[in-house]
Amino acid sequence: MLNIGIIGYGGMGSYHHRELIKQKDGVQVTGVYDIKSERMEVAKEAGLKPYKSLEELLSDDTIDAVLVATPNDVHKELSIQAMTSGKHVVCEKPAMMSTQELDDVIKVSNETGQVFMVHQNRRWDNDFLIIQDMYQKKPIGELFQIESRVHGANGIPGDWRHLEKHGGGMLLDWGVHLLDQLLFMVDSPVKEVSADLSYILGDEVDDGFIADITFENGVKALVEVGTTNFVKLPRWYVKGLEGTAVIDDWDLSGKVVKQTGVIDHHNLVPIKAGQGLTKTMSPPSEDATTTLPIVEVEADYDGFYQNFYDVVVNNATPIVKNEEVRDVLALIERIFEVAKI
Amino acid sequence: MLNIGIIGYGGMGSYHHRELIKQKDGVQVTGVYDIKSERMEVAKEAGLKPYKSLEELLSDDTIDAVLVATPNDVHKELSIQAMTSGKHVVCEKPAMMSTQELDDVIKVSNETGQVFMVHQNRRWDNDFLIIQDMYQKKPIGELFQIESRVHGANGIPGDWRHLEKHGGGMLLDWGVHLLDQLLFMVDSPVKEVSADLSYILGDEVDDGFIADITFENGVKALVEVGTTNFVKLPRWYVKGLEGTAVIDDWDLSGKVVKQTGVIDHHNLVPIKAGQGLTKTMSPPSEDATTTLPIVEVEADYDGFYQNFYDVVVNNATPIVKNEEVRDVLALIERIFEVAKI
Repeated sequence: MLNIGIIGYGGMGSYHHRELIKQKDGVQVTGVYDIKSERMEVAKEAGLKPYKSLEELLSDDTIDAVLVATPNDVHKELSIQAMTSGKHVVCEKPAMMSTQELDDVIKVSNETGQVFMVHQNRRWDNDFLIIQDMYQKKPIGELFQIESRVHGANGIPGDWRHLEKHGGGMLLDWGVHLLDQLLFMVDSPVKEVSADLSYILGDEVDDGFIADITFENGVKALVEVGTTNFVKLPRWYVKGLEGTAVIDDWDLSGKVVKQTGVIDHHNLVPIKAGQGLTKTMSPPSEDATTTLPIVEVEADYDGFYQNFYDVVVNNATPIVKNEEVRDVLALIERIFEVAKI
Repeated sequence: MLNIGIIGYGGMGSYHHRELIKQKDGVQVTGVYDIKSERMEVAKEAGLKPYKSLEELLSDDTIDAVLVATPNDVHKELSIQAMTSGKHVVCEKPAMMSTQELDDVIKVSNETGQVFMVHQNRRWDNDFLIIQDMYQKKPIGELFQIESRVHGANGIPGDWRHLEKHGGGMLLDWGVHLLDQLLFMVDSPVKEVSADLSYILGDEVDDGFIADITFENGVKALVEVGTTNFVKLPRWYVKGLEGTAVIDDWDLSGKVVKQTGVIDHHNLVPIKAGQGLTKTMSPPSEDATTTLPIVEVEADYDGFYQNFYDVVVNNATPIVKNEEVRDVLALIERIFEVAKI
């Protein structure tokens, strides 16, 4: 059994605690340190041992690993401090604010032999798993256009996420999830990137972005995060050579339509559309297409911490590899760069 | 009363005829010429005088104007021939295959004094008029992001639209409508353009495209035409500083949501979304937003030919100005250009 100490008992720290209580074996949360006394009170009430200082937690030999769930700008120093104190590290996303920071952390991980692993939990989101399964099994043919959007209307939440020095902004916050999913799914190097960051709310950090990404294998992706969207576009819109799939939301509603018959381009029946006729945009004849069910994929939600245990104890291969995390951070840096031009 | 001869009695030529029968006064279709004998038979059955040749039609003094509704590559020579024969011209879209062609035609119009006017009928589409009204009256604040899409799954219809020499492809076919609407609505010069043409169907011309257009006034637009989309994204998706509007389709279904109260960024209630929590993407509290009705705008559908009559007879200002048509063609040329890079 690995004993975990949580550093930073905010929204994500307490979420990890609740999730880990559900775990059957392998890891358990035992203690906590947070710079805010009110969060320490919440942790105590939740049955965790409170540490008076970070040093006290890191010098406790009963603690095997820490979860770093603080604002982004201190992920690096806390991860390094934990590893040099002999603790393994699970780190919340975005792992670091730059590839340089991550390289420094990986160096310490290699030197100390302590595991450093990033919590990219959205690789287990059902909506993503459905699209990934389609990408691999091709029920609507080879996917060549992938649009992944997350739309909300609440602006940027909380306090530190509004500030650049804390690593705020939506590209680092939600962008890192969507880009991690995309790079995890599409096994091809990124070729071209263009992007546009949104600063509509007047924050010093981006309140959303749209990135167009072309892969070497020809796949084109649009990734969008919006926090000023009072009506949502679908979570996923993907085009395959033989059909189109839409997943509307995390509730997994949506539609998958596959071409199953010949569309006779010479005998299309025009429809009235606005003040004109169109054959091009008339619905295909009913016998030319079929609606497929949205097939849920079995997901091993507890996989992350079980894998973390295996990596620490049995030298297993990590599910979230640090080189993958680095590729995502490099892509984020590239998006910031091209958006400036 | 202006007598009109139709040149090219295909889908659009016969559509104009049916529409003009509805007109109360001003213009009427009297004759027709088509290179295909079977189309001439259809025209005869519809009660039109058939001409044996283009020359016969153009030398008939009872004909005041012609409608050019042929494949795109002969718009120029037919328009010039008609004007030098003393006929006014209504030309189907896309007016010409290049700004150079249009400049040649406008020169002849100026020299002969014959009217040349392009039929940009989709300026009267209800979906467009609703969005244009929002752009002008700002019920959801200043619009800063405008996404205009037309999605179909029939590929490229017919025969000549597949061929480059005839001016085929979707950018010239549907793109010209969406770009005309956009430039007609947003009264600001185009600043930046990036674009991607689709050749998924293996034709020599584009089967669709996505163009990102930034205007000098800061408005950003995405214009997309797809003919391999078995599920549609909404016809319009627009973001204002105080809300979002969606028009799903030509049936004018959709949703308009306006922010009417303060969103408290510090007290958002997180929702479970996939394998994580999110405050950012939780729905805004109910008292922070209001759903507005979609307000239909009164449209003067018969306006085009009535205006044409007034331009010819009373020297009125044309509703569709040739410099506007030229701006759209210049934008199309720019999209072809940047898409190559």
